[in-house]
Amino acid sequence: MRNVEHIGIAVKDFSEANALYFKLLGVEPYKTEFVSSENVNTSFFKVGDTKIELLEGTTEDSAITKFIQKRGEGIHHIAFEVDDILNEMERLKQEGFTLLNETPKKGADNKLVCFVHPKSANGVLIELTQEIK
Amino acid sequence: MRNVEHIGIAVKDFSEANALYFKLLGVEPYKTEFVSSENVNTSFFKVGDTKIELLEGTTEDSAITKFIQKRGEGIHHIAFEVDDILNEMERLKQEGFTLLNETPKKGADNKLVCFVHPKSANGVLIELTQEIK
Repeated sequence: MRNVEHIGIAVKDFSEANALYFKLLGVEPYKTEFVSSENVNTSFFKVGDTKIELLEGTTEDSAITKFIQKRGEGIHHIAFEVDDILNEMERLKQEGFTLLNETPKKGADNKLVCFVHPKSANGVLIELTQEIK
Repeated sequence: MRNVEHIGIAVKDFSEANALYFKLLGVEPYKTEFVSSENVNTSFFKVGDTKIELLEGTTEDSAITKFIQKRGEGIHHIAFEVDDILNEMERLKQEGFTLLNETPKKGADNKLVCFVHPKSANGVLIELTQEIK
């Protein structure tokens, strides 16, 4: 695990939340992106070496919509940058962690990603992320 | 906001969680500390420029114990490092954010801290933190 690549925050209203996090962080999002595979709008704010990612579900069955229905708005996941996602997935499986996808999938911001089940990690949804080069 | 100083995770069993995050992150906590003012045990893992802080309430009325009773284990707060906490508190108040303490208080890891109400920030408990020099 190289560093905390980003922290994902589930929000109900994308434009209101973007305006609010601009006020909070003092920077504009450097990017917004619709991730069709997950049905989410995403925006990214750079704070030092880490990013804050806002996530809004665009359909009723989006994982973000369901998360908000169940728990309300709030922090959704922590993403750790790794150099070799396949190696890291294998290492974590050997250590007893449950992966939510068996092969890396394409996430936002030009990344390969894999999620670790929150039940494996004290209720925290962990994302592994590796930049696609 | 200079960077994400740490991410706080509320856990039920401190020693089990420390062992699990050692396996997840591949590093031992560089420090554990009991914060008497908050009735919490804390441990810190360094990942790049950010830290993961595990928090275990040691009394029934600890904020961490109450958080877990209400929401279960999971991510509790995000802490942003600031250069001048008083200035930043004033700026956020002017922007309409609700602060949970009107003056900075002493937190773990030799810091002055102030919390922003989660209702101000899409359900996210935000901590401002400045190192005591």
